[in-house]
Amino acid sequence: MILVQGTARLHPDDIPAMRAAAGPMVAASRAEAGCLAYAYAEDVIEPGLLHVVERWADQAALDAHFATPHMAAFNTALAQARVLGITVTAFEVHGERLLVGGG
Amino acid sequence: MILVQGTARLHPDDIPAMRAAAGPMVAASRAEAGCLAYAYAEDVIEPGLLHVVERWADQAALDAHFATPHMAAFNTALAQARVLGITVTAFEVHGERLLVGGG
Repeated sequence: MILVQGTARLHPDDIPAMRAAAGPMVAASRAEAGCLAYAYAEDVIEPGLLHVVERWADQAALDAHFATPHMAAFNTALAQARVLGITVTAFEVHGERLLVGGG
Repeated sequence: MILVQGTARLHPDDIPAMRAAAGPMVAASRAEAGCLAYAYAEDVIEPGLLHVVERWADQAALDAHFATPHMAAFNTALAQARVLGITVTAFEVHGERLLVGGG
């Protein structure tokens, strides 16, 4: 499984536009083959700091994700925002353990 | 490295209290030995859905985190909230690759 964790710090005035762009991007991504989780979330302490959280079945699924039309559309929207910093990393994971809850 | 990803769905009226509890919890967790990343974030599409994103140097660091006073305090706060669902999972990392940005 491939996990993706990332952060993007945006100019506060650009957050509403990114929220609007996030809706279609998240829905289309979740519908992709091999997408196990996909979400954008705003830090509860630092407004304007967005977190990306993703889980993919394998590297092929993640590669395909980067080639989708919704990724291209989202990158176009992102290019119009004032991105003050962005880092997104993929992690290959081999074991998992439930810490809290379930289902 | 150990990655943690999780979600907690709270009653909307309990979100402000959880935001208040999150501040000290995040600060104290980030100060722990072996904590590489620690954040709580609210989903941009589903208000009330909180995401947990963590990275720890190793399992020992994560085990120590669960034994801290700030974890106990946060769990006390969480017990007073209407938690509609919670799942937190730890993943063992075997490789990582930068996808976007850096630094």
